[in-house]
Amino acid sequence: MAAGTPFRDYPVGHQAARLNRGPVEYNWPMTDIHSYMLKVGRDARSASRLIGACSTRTKSRALQGIAAAMDEARGVMKEANACDMARAEANDLDRPLLDRLLLDDKGIDHMIEGVLQVDKLPDPIGEVSDLSYQPSGIQVGRMRVPLGVIGIIYESRPNVTVDAAILCLKSGNACILRGGSEAIESNKIIATCITEGLVAAGLPEEVVHLVNITDRAVVGELLKLNAYVDIIVPRGGESLIERVSRESTIPVIKHLDGICHVYIDEDADPDMAVAIAVNSKTEKLAVCNAIETLLIAENIAGTVLPTLAQRYGQAGVELRGCERTLALVPDAAPAKEEDWGTEYLGPILAIRVVDGVDEAIRHINTHGSHHTDAIVSNNYMRTRRFLTEVDSSSVLVNASTQFADGFEYGLGAEVGISTDKLHARGPVGLEGLTTQKYVVFGNGEIRHR
Amino acid sequence: MAAGTPFRDYPVGHQAARLNRGPVEYNWPMTDIHSYMLKVGRDARSASRLIGACSTRTKSRALQGIAAAMDEARGVMKEANACDMARAEANDLDRPLLDRLLLDDKGIDHMIEGVLQVDKLPDPIGEVSDLSYQPSGIQVGRMRVPLGVIGIIYESRPNVTVDAAILCLKSGNACILRGGSEAIESNKIIATCITEGLVAAGLPEEVVHLVNITDRAVVGELLKLNAYVDIIVPRGGESLIERVSRESTIPVIKHLDGICHVYIDEDADPDMAVAIAVNSKTEKLAVCNAIETLLIAENIAGTVLPTLAQRYGQAGVELRGCERTLALVPDAAPAKEEDWGTEYLGPILAIRVVDGVDEAIRHINTHGSHHTDAIVSNNYMRTRRFLTEVDSSSVLVNASTQFADGFEYGLGAEVGISTDKLHARGPVGLEGLTTQKYVVFGNGEIRHR
Repeated sequence: MAAGTPFRDYPVGHQAARLNRGPVEYNWPMTDIHSYMLKVGRDARSASRLIGACSTRTKSRALQGIAAAMDEARGVMKEANACDMARAEANDLDRPLLDRLLLDDKGIDHMIEGVLQVDKLPDPIGEVSDLSYQPSGIQVGRMRVPLGVIGIIYESRPNVTVDAAILCLKSGNACILRGGSEAIESNKIIATCITEGLVAAGLPEEVVHLVNITDRAVVGELLKLNAYVDIIVPRGGESLIERVSRESTIPVIKHLDGICHVYIDEDADPDMAVAIAVNSKTEKLAVCNAIETLLIAENIAGTVLPTLAQRYGQAGVELRGCERTLALVPDAAPAKEEDWGTEYLGPILAIRVVDGVDEAIRHINTHGSHHTDAIVSNNYMRTRRFLTEVDSSSVLVNASTQFADGFEYGLGAEVGISTDKLHARGPVGLEGLTTQKYVVFGNGEIRHR
Repeated sequence: MAAGTPFRDYPVGHQAARLNRGPVEYNWPMTDIHSYMLKVGRDARSASRLIGACSTRTKSRALQGIAAAMDEARGVMKEANACDMARAEANDLDRPLLDRLLLDDKGIDHMIEGVLQVDKLPDPIGEVSDLSYQPSGIQVGRMRVPLGVIGIIYESRPNVTVDAAILCLKSGNACILRGGSEAIESNKIIATCITEGLVAAGLPEEVVHLVNITDRAVVGELLKLNAYVDIIVPRGGESLIERVSRESTIPVIKHLDGICHVYIDEDADPDMAVAIAVNSKTEKLAVCNAIETLLIAENIAGTVLPTLAQRYGQAGVELRGCERTLALVPDAAPAKEEDWGTEYLGPILAIRVVDGVDEAIRHINTHGSHHTDAIVSNNYMRTRRFLTEVDSSSVLVNASTQFADGFEYGLGAEVGISTDKLHARGPVGLEGLTTQKYVVFGNGEIRHR
């Protein structure tokens, strides 16, 4: 090791000394989960100091090691996953959950590709921006640095284990992962592969800690580790996210509802409007960026709505319309007030005819969830107004709302989509797992107040 | 008004119609503070939609109007302040509090200058960055937008009323201000001037709402207005910040301790080291960016410490040292373990001799408050390591820690210094009161998964 290099490479075995403690001994089962989680937190904090100052090359070596280990572990991984699947089936888990739990060769390929893609992304850490001289003579800039320790709580999908781990690793963060108990055997194998990759790069295994205790008390303890954990990212259903928001004493990056809209303006191209409105709903129904309400300007409703109703009908989508919609689409059911604020996540769509862009913006800002909203229009001023005034994490012009994710936005990968306004808004990629600190270069300046 | 301009100018009197409600009628005293604060929150949310989409020119007109109104109101402002001062003196408030409460002509000049300076800052809102084409054909970028509604809770300094209001206004946010009851009469006059400025620019007065009810229940209600308030900024002493952190259901940008350090490296220029170490402590003692602990490399301690001890002695600073310090500065008191974690905010300094940069970094990351830390060194690798590995909101090389504020960093003004890592870290200027949303420009693209 070149002693004193700012971004260092750690040879194997070196890290134990730098962590100022002996070899890892968790002594599980312990008498209490509280002490165990405290230790996990403390170790993650120590490890975060190492990974945060580690070179791009070392992180790359770890990522490539993880990919190689996963490729080698295909057999055991599928066996472990078969155990999880058998248990889940015996417990009568429903089909979508089983689908998310399954790891076949295609799924494993996909995970490995993901690791190699993240390896190729530019390293965000250490980047200095806005470096400029001030009247006092000091030069002030901002350096991108890791957040520190990230806690990720998720449900049954085992691929989240590797996705979350590699994004945290690349962005210089240590992480504590707590997956769903359904996937415990699959997760253990994945965690072993991650450890192998870390060790191959000379990094301490505490950089990624998978908590494989299924007791739900673990989550409660994790949410109270303020002293060691900088941010919590819950990934899963509404009840998980609500529990985490309620109990966490650590800031949370979260994703709540996705009540998304397409607004078809009177100056829209009718074919484009139909294509975008249909795709935004039906390309995938149960995703957060699928639309739940279609808004359409009165002047174009007569031209477009009958065709749209036919296309939605073919796709098996049930329509619920306002009065003006019902006049044009007699088959639709009448929409109730609560339809404007419901995330169906399925084959139901609410439709409202509006006077124009003003009413559309007002409707979206009032009833939407500030997630993703699109306008279809060829009118310059109205598209500008929509972009400016719609208060959502993604605002699109003439494109399907289904594009709103980290991959399509060029972030390379995402840890989730944030509906919060602070820190990270919209798809959260590597940058969302970092922060900036001020750096000042002086020449001996002192301040005279 | 040019209907449909994305950033619009609102002529006087127009806003009431756009807010979808009648003229302002608070009907205070009401039976309960809860309903009152709900109304304040709702009105601020409505007003935030207007100010968020409003042109730079309109905001400038409002700022200039505020400055002019304050200049005209000098007489009444000083009279109102005299009432506050008399009441505070009768209540035996202590000297520093009285100093912060006083508004004389110099103080009023300073506030007016502040308003005009913020007017000259570039408008952050609407700025689009990183706009780039993706493989699907969509063009994705990020647009800087206001947070929405900002709640600011502060203590006796009346100038915070105008500073907070103008930063929120310039960054397109509505704000709810709750100042200390000691300054209530001064604050009312300042609020009147702000309203005059807003009205002169045709903006609704709800853009800046000063809550002038002194009942402390107001704070509790404000901290629970999640539906209407996006962020809370507490400015004041530890007990205020603790209460706000504990009770708030809204995210908080806060400033906790300032346990700052200077580390004098063995390759430091001795004169520069003395100048920076002395200035970092004594230029102003009771500020958060004054140092509480001096760290010094063993190899240079003998050269520098005796001179330093003499300079600190002249400035009336009491020294508390580790054993190695005491060997060089026999007059110093022995430091206890808790001295490394104490924010004295006064004429006491802890001193520790360390082996080198490794121990210094470890000490700072362990005992510091991640606020502001400086190294004095002429060594390339060690300054780079210090910059990279010290986990603080400001890290300086060869400059006094007392530079760590928004004015010296070129932010133009600051709403406070954040010791949080998320969203805003370090001095918080206009940008810290904004967020970014994704904007997507398409040509009819739909997604094929």
